[in-house]
Amino acid sequence: MPSSPLTPLALPHVPKLHAYTPGLQPAESGWVKLNTNEFPYPPSPRVAEAILREVGSDGASLRLYPNPKSQPLRAAVAWLHGLREENVCIGNGSDDILNLLVRVFGGPAAAVGYTFPSYSLYPVLVEIQDGRKDVIEFDRSMRLPLERMAASTARAFFLTSPNAPTGVAFSNADLERVLAAYGGVLVVDEAYAPFATENAIPLLARHPRLVVVRTLSKAYALAGLRVGYALGDPELIGLLDRVRDSYNVNRLSQAAAIAALGDTDYYAGVVAKVKATRDAHLARFAQRGWFTYPSQANFIFTEPRDARGETGPVVAKSAYDFLCARKVLVRHFPSHALTAPFLRITVGKDAEMQVLQQTLDGWLGGSGG
Amino acid sequence: MPSSPLTPLALPHVPKLHAYTPGLQPAESGWVKLNTNEFPYPPSPRVAEAILREVGSDGASLRLYPNPKSQPLRAAVAWLHGLREENVCIGNGSDDILNLLVRVFGGPAAAVGYTFPSYSLYPVLVEIQDGRKDVIEFDRSMRLPLERMAASTARAFFLTSPNAPTGVAFSNADLERVLAAYGGVLVVDEAYAPFATENAIPLLARHPRLVVVRTLSKAYALAGLRVGYALGDPELIGLLDRVRDSYNVNRLSQAAAIAALGDTDYYAGVVAKVKATRDAHLARFAQRGWFTYPSQANFIFTEPRDARGETGPVVAKSAYDFLCARKVLVRHFPSHALTAPFLRITVGKDAEMQVLQQTLDGWLGGSGG
Repeated sequence: MPSSPLTPLALPHVPKLHAYTPGLQPAESGWVKLNTNEFPYPPSPRVAEAILREVGSDGASLRLYPNPKSQPLRAAVAWLHGLREENVCIGNGSDDILNLLVRVFGGPAAAVGYTFPSYSLYPVLVEIQDGRKDVIEFDRSMRLPLERMAASTARAFFLTSPNAPTGVAFSNADLERVLAAYGGVLVVDEAYAPFATENAIPLLARHPRLVVVRTLSKAYALAGLRVGYALGDPELIGLLDRVRDSYNVNRLSQAAAIAALGDTDYYAGVVAKVKATRDAHLARFAQRGWFTYPSQANFIFTEPRDARGETGPVVAKSAYDFLCARKVLVRHFPSHALTAPFLRITVGKDAEMQVLQQTLDGWLGGSGG
Repeated sequence: MPSSPLTPLALPHVPKLHAYTPGLQPAESGWVKLNTNEFPYPPSPRVAEAILREVGSDGASLRLYPNPKSQPLRAAVAWLHGLREENVCIGNGSDDILNLLVRVFGGPAAAVGYTFPSYSLYPVLVEIQDGRKDVIEFDRSMRLPLERMAASTARAFFLTSPNAPTGVAFSNADLERVLAAYGGVLVVDEAYAPFATENAIPLLARHPRLVVVRTLSKAYALAGLRVGYALGDPELIGLLDRVRDSYNVNRLSQAAAIAALGDTDYYAGVVAKVKATRDAHLARFAQRGWFTYPSQANFIFTEPRDARGETGPVVAKSAYDFLCARKVLVRHFPSHALTAPFLRITVGKDAEMQVLQQTLDGWLGGSGG
């Protein structure tokens, strides 16, 4: 840190922060991009229509502030899930919602809990808030650590289900066991739930300490527009609104999201396609004899096994590097023993997954074999 | 507050927060909307073109995350102001930037300063952070309270210039006097500077403790898209990036902002038009004998004087209500003696300002007279 008049003026924890590391977004084309869990198909055609309608001939509507509460979008989300508007808060991506939750519940004297592994943004957000952390590690089974969660004194606990980067989903029965035993707010981050067989929304009616977080970045193919939402008790939503930026979601994102959420037929089709591709490749990895978690998300977390039958961090890194050199981008999390032997592979189009598997064949036959 | 399991779990200051009150955004048409300082003309035609180009035929690019640092937009902003990319941080509106600044410098043990009156979001942001406040009140002269600012022990001090809701701008000579005497970070919120004769950007080169905040919501006619930025020392920008959401600005907003910033000719023309309208109506209010601050912004802060020659909060409220009943929306800030006798009137198109003045004539001739 250079000597400067600025750093000593910042809160002491801020200069020590490390920003969240997003997956690579290569600027040039030609990559098979399976690293950030983006949806492989375009959004509903209604999205482009809604944006063009909002822009109009000259963009004149853009000179006006957006609806500060995203009220029509709250109504659309509520309708979609059979809830009321008071159960919904809209964020500039679900990351915004997670940030608001941390600001309501976390601080130097109030812990926020989360599991490891899970979405790596949680510790970043808690550290920005100079908050205490209660980190509960999975073991390799990736089964929900029910007893340890029950004993947590965190004000709020973030649980990703289906989990990242494993793809393992937790059952509503397990979530209800947590809610019965744990005394804080259980935040179930359902970024990937549209790819799963079950979700926690039906539990909301009888569990005021449950919050469900959703995003349009994954199953709605709108990562570029930054829209996510929280579903929960009206009192919880009121707390989020107190710490929320009053114009957090822009006009085009609001219009596009309403259009997307309304096209359930389109998304049912393309989500089913992604799930079919996922299941076909889960089977392909099983054929290879690679240990792979039973994914209910739009990615696959698999443990590469080289031609000598070896697994481990070095083997995973070798596969990652081989893929990367051939412009197939996946994700490797080398910093922890639970994740380092694995690759996380976003489920792309069939042709992209074909390229992935053929490149892995090449790795097995060549430098990896 | 109903008895609930949720409120006691929140940080103690959060349930007491009051959200920022944005100006009314009437849903129906037919209003002369002069209440939220939006720009009266559409954005550059290049904005709609850039959005359509980014959306493409099917919105496919929207499935991908935006550039996490808004890097091409940082480059465009830097180029516009003759700075380097390391001097620029992009926000989801300048409100996002202000929020980041509060999170870097403010807390229960670290005061953030600001003047009263000024942008009413500052106290909201500091309270969300449970931060200490150092509020310095203007007197009716609205001259910069140099000595009191010099004595402030706040880590950061927010100064709006031109100020809101008065429109009074502070000279660079005065800002340099503050920087010489005050030891913290001086944040000059230049939301309205494109309508002024001077701005603080030339001071950045020799004042590392100066931050200039800009928005595209006012002079670029893009309130609906939520883009703002901070200009400052690279170390300050680095601190903001540490607490910034990694995908805070969406793809369409990034593309639109780059297009807008590039069309300097278009904006020079429409900004000059707004300034001409403002100056004509400043003269008109002077003719009426209404005390009006010398605005360098896109709004006018004037003290209505009724037909009996009376001024004051009741008179201002009477004018406000009369206008509102005739669908002319302006802003009244009744909660403080410095602002309650005034109305803040956004500079609209000539025809809108005509309606405003005629309606005020009606007020003087009728119930107000």
